[in-house]
Amino acid sequence: ELRDAVIGFFQPKVLQGKKLLITAGPTFEPIDPVRGLTNLSSGKMGFAIARAAQEAGAEVTLVAGPVHLDTPAGVRRIDVRTARQMFDAVLPLAPEHDVFVATAAVADWRPADVSDAKIKKAPGRDVPVLELVENPDILAAVARLARRPYCVGFAAESHDLARHAREKLQRKNVPLVVGNLGPATFGRDDNALLLVDAQGEREVPCASKRALSRVLVQEIAQRLASRS
Amino acid sequence: ELRDAVIGFFQPKVLQGKKLLITAGPTFEPIDPVRGLTNLSSGKMGFAIARAAQEAGAEVTLVAGPVHLDTPAGVRRIDVRTARQMFDAVLPLAPEHDVFVATAAVADWRPADVSDAKIKKAPGRDVPVLELVENPDILAAVARLARRPYCVGFAAESHDLARHAREKLQRKNVPLVVGNLGPATFGRDDNALLLVDAQGEREVPCASKRALSRVLVQEIAQRLASRS
Repeated sequence: ELRDAVIGFFQPKVLQGKKLLITAGPTFEPIDPVRGLTNLSSGKMGFAIARAAQEAGAEVTLVAGPVHLDTPAGVRRIDVRTARQMFDAVLPLAPEHDVFVATAAVADWRPADVSDAKIKKAPGRDVPVLELVENPDILAAVARLARRPYCVGFAAESHDLARHAREKLQRKNVPLVVGNLGPATFGRDDNALLLVDAQGEREVPCASKRALSRVLVQEIAQRLASRS
Repeated sequence: ELRDAVIGFFQPKVLQGKKLLITAGPTFEPIDPVRGLTNLSSGKMGFAIARAAQEAGAEVTLVAGPVHLDTPAGVRRIDVRTARQMFDAVLPLAPEHDVFVATAAVADWRPADVSDAKIKKAPGRDVPVLELVENPDILAAVARLARRPYCVGFAAESHDLARHAREKLQRKNVPLVVGNLGPATFGRDDNALLLVDAQGEREVPCASKRALSRVLVQEIAQRLASRS
């Protein structure tokens, strides 16, 4: 851990003077005071990227869903629970950042009605049906801003990763989408990434999330430099 | 923490020679490979009771849903994710235990269909409706066993705690139900309990979950002794 901190300290400062905003973790969409919809994202990838960006000299703001992870040193953290809270935290901050990295596994839908009291199971009572409504799309909203940061999307897919990642790139109108085979990697400490942009695809082979994060930060910094 | 371990070591061995089975934490009911229904239970109360019972001399088996907690020393732990997995782990073990404590916040319902692939959001596609089916009732099933342990239920309620706890006592046919105002206490380190049995009600005022667990273990041991 000390060795790692030393390596971190000596990372090239490729994001010096840049401000990076990142979302991480799942969201939790309440059904009633105790239940909710969520997903298996651990937040580890996002926290690792926040750390790598900070080590690369960036000023980092991390908007985190409900996770059990320590805040990386030097990173400003804002905790939220739902997709709408994440949207409300991110949108006002986005225009003042140079880079926005959307790693959070934001719930696409939330229950249409939230019960104030715990929904009771009772003999003879019908099993409830959950009606869902769509959540706001945080990444697409940031990408539509007039003063928009360089936007990086994440695609966690169970199949057809390259195709889904490229679709996301076009649909959300962002310059870079990072694909990972989510269900196989959620909660794990290692991963493999597929970088998809207008130029093509690049695979970053399986490594620790920390190592992958450093590669990704370099890739983002290069694209940022070649753009300006 | 050392002080606490010493206090634990010198707890009266009121459950010496007894076998206690306990469930803790939430369950996670998959919708697709990444999403699911869950609840806000942290598992802390159940883990604290497992620890207190072990310190009181019991041989403890802890069946835990997805939580981020360390296994108490000397406790045997079985990890599960869904209500059905918890049911399958508990039922065969129950007859060989003297006490069963059901602290887990088991999902009452699960999605009727689990998608093998991640459900995609797409323009023009309808918002999905989640049809639910009822999960098996683990506590009621254990209480119906011919060779049944002394069963302790937990009731986490957002309102009308005493009434709901007494209803649960009767509906599940168990000798003791412990009520707590769930939504206010989930994830917190302290709590207050309401013990409901055939004799009446007893309030255990707000204290750390560790202290409450020791009181509860004493109460269970007394009832166990007076029964045999």
